[in-house]
Amino acid sequence: MIARKTEEGILKGSVIRAMFTEGKAMAERYGAENVYDYSLGNPAVPAPEKLKSVIADLVKEADPLELHGYMNNAGFPEVRDRIAEDLNRRFGTSYDGAHIVMTVGAAGGLNVALKTILDPGDEVIVFAPYFGEYKNYVANWDGALVEVSPDLFAFQPNLTELEEKITPRTKAVIINTPNNPTGVLYSEETLKRLGETLTKAGERIGHAICLLSDEPYRELVYDGAQQSFPAKHYKHTIVCYSFSKSLSLPGERIGYLAVSPEIEDEDRLLEGLTQSNRVLGFVNAPSLMQKAVAACLSEKTELAFYDKNRKRLYESLTACGFFCVKPEGAFYLWMKVPGAPEGKTVTAEEEQAFVDRAKEERLLLVKGSAFGCTGYVRIAYCVSPEMIERSLASFRQLAKHTVN
Amino acid sequence: MIARKTEEGILKGSVIRAMFTEGKAMAERYGAENVYDYSLGNPAVPAPEKLKSVIADLVKEADPLELHGYMNNAGFPEVRDRIAEDLNRRFGTSYDGAHIVMTVGAAGGLNVALKTILDPGDEVIVFAPYFGEYKNYVANWDGALVEVSPDLFAFQPNLTELEEKITPRTKAVIINTPNNPTGVLYSEETLKRLGETLTKAGERIGHAICLLSDEPYRELVYDGAQQSFPAKHYKHTIVCYSFSKSLSLPGERIGYLAVSPEIEDEDRLLEGLTQSNRVLGFVNAPSLMQKAVAACLSEKTELAFYDKNRKRLYESLTACGFFCVKPEGAFYLWMKVPGAPEGKTVTAEEEQAFVDRAKEERLLLVKGSAFGCTGYVRIAYCVSPEMIERSLASFRQLAKHTVN
Repeated sequence: MIARKTEEGILKGSVIRAMFTEGKAMAERYGAENVYDYSLGNPAVPAPEKLKSVIADLVKEADPLELHGYMNNAGFPEVRDRIAEDLNRRFGTSYDGAHIVMTVGAAGGLNVALKTILDPGDEVIVFAPYFGEYKNYVANWDGALVEVSPDLFAFQPNLTELEEKITPRTKAVIINTPNNPTGVLYSEETLKRLGETLTKAGERIGHAICLLSDEPYRELVYDGAQQSFPAKHYKHTIVCYSFSKSLSLPGERIGYLAVSPEIEDEDRLLEGLTQSNRVLGFVNAPSLMQKAVAACLSEKTELAFYDKNRKRLYESLTACGFFCVKPEGAFYLWMKVPGAPEGKTVTAEEEQAFVDRAKEERLLLVKGSAFGCTGYVRIAYCVSPEMIERSLASFRQLAKHTVN
Repeated sequence: MIARKTEEGILKGSVIRAMFTEGKAMAERYGAENVYDYSLGNPAVPAPEKLKSVIADLVKEADPLELHGYMNNAGFPEVRDRIAEDLNRRFGTSYDGAHIVMTVGAAGGLNVALKTILDPGDEVIVFAPYFGEYKNYVANWDGALVEVSPDLFAFQPNLTELEEKITPRTKAVIINTPNNPTGVLYSEETLKRLGETLTKAGERIGHAICLLSDEPYRELVYDGAQQSFPAKHYKHTIVCYSFSKSLSLPGERIGYLAVSPEIEDEDRLLEGLTQSNRVLGFVNAPSLMQKAVAACLSEKTELAFYDKNRKRLYESLTACGFFCVKPEGAFYLWMKVPGAPEGKTVTAEEEQAFVDRAKEERLLLVKGSAFGCTGYVRIAYCVSPEMIERSLASFRQLAKHTVN
């Protein structure tokens, strides 16, 4: 009964989601405390206390017909206004409420944006390593994903290769900074050059290239650094935001699109996004959560919690002899699979063997191939510090067997 | 920047949503109390009181990491179990939790189901009049919508024409009972014959035809009648349910798919649905609301409220000389545009003129063409009884100018 595309998807599956299921099975077999599941980006810090009282107050005091009712498909006007104001205050932008479309998380937002702009065969460029689901999101709309190969030194986007890969069919470029899976921040300089490259290329090919900036980790930045706001450096930008990580609400599916005021075709694009939100069946972002996050825009997650994990894990793994990219943001650590000389990476088979060997130590790590960058693993350290401590012996065992 | 399909969509727009916006504008011009907006199916009865305490308790007592966290893309196992049990108890079915996929409303569920089963060019049959968004949902996956013409007497599905329209490309049939826009219930006899027709046709074309039963109005049935459960009469059924109307939560986007245990290709279909839920960007149904509705499965909306509106409006409009189908369920009244002889309907232009004339009386009615059935209007009576009373003079004026 099922469609060919669905069938292909089932065969490929999601590596990360398969691990999520495998992790649960292993936890039952060995006991949850003896399995070290580093596979999923599920926040480990609870939602802010204020959210509780905000929800309680809304349920108690708001008119339930409005609180749980339909609104404009783009969201409650006052929620959109508050988000625009918050962005403007923080980043010196000039959004107003009309530029904000509330969405079912960033994943929903990305699909809404891609559906709105992609004709079949249109190309979307991503920088490896990248969040593997982008491939599915682009395929949903019969677009073609074009990968720019990774910069194995700094993991910044390779802009020279980007320029080469832009064709008249290029409709969009997706970036994600702080980056999943590397934990790297794209620098201000990189973003500036990215904007210039896209502007020039857009003139060459005769239409604007849309920059989709996927920013669920925007607020998760360490060492007092700040993520430069990509939309500041290129006017044809749609920000895809999610409150999943910043307010620890991944299951609630709440986020937004912020469309740059000077974007090409602004009015029709906004109308198109709102329409896509409706016809895809999202209809609108969950109503209670719209109001709840709007009242919590100044809330911050407990960054120190992730920071402590980050330092402990980075130092421990480095001490084991593993090569790790020091995370600057998000809650992922990007570790090289041992066995390849500097500047080179192991094969997909060797990467798989490493991940399997880690599993024998009851360590669940996601292979780099899932992110278009073979020879690495992603370690999601949004876990309890106790799990990290318990897992260190396993990492040491893994190093003993794999690091020369 | 936008895609061709998006552009076409913008040009056509949504008649109902456009009215929603127009209604707001008219309310500002004439004062909200002087505009009689019968255009949108937005419940007028507040969510049950119990929901408030359930949400308050969840937020206070549940572990926020679980309450707001990721779970299996199909939903929380205990929520799915409870829904399966509730369906089995009420309808004598034999679902278990694995047959339930929690979705972002019925609109989300329909898109998930259609994406999962449709290859480009596959045909989906609907019975006119039908909810206009089905056309968009099918187009999202490059399917072809095939309309069975309306039965202008009883508004039951025309099964003879259905049989004729089934081809080897037929992948699914969508039904919606209690029906939007007619308010009619498909009878048990009809559903039984529908099941037989589909079974026979499936044998003829060599594959099972999926019945998508869109049931947001299942619990809104008047005069002590009960909607026969369509899945009981055909084994290849996917129920698409929403709590939008039964618990007055349309903005929260919470519903489910229930896949019949004996459906063809069961395991892969369930896997495909879960995958589509993920890759479309829904990821999962909103987590807090999943738990909230699971605790409110026995709650009922205030049917008497809608019933009173139904009777008052039906009697008043009939007294004006309008011909109306007496609603048996949902909260819609289906009224014939005056001017055509019995068994005939007016043209699309005449229908439009009638809707425009109604607007002059500050009555917002949705034209039947939006539902694939020209010559009627849909009147959504999920409004305050006071608005109905205030609007009656306008209806009388409208009748004076249009009913012979």
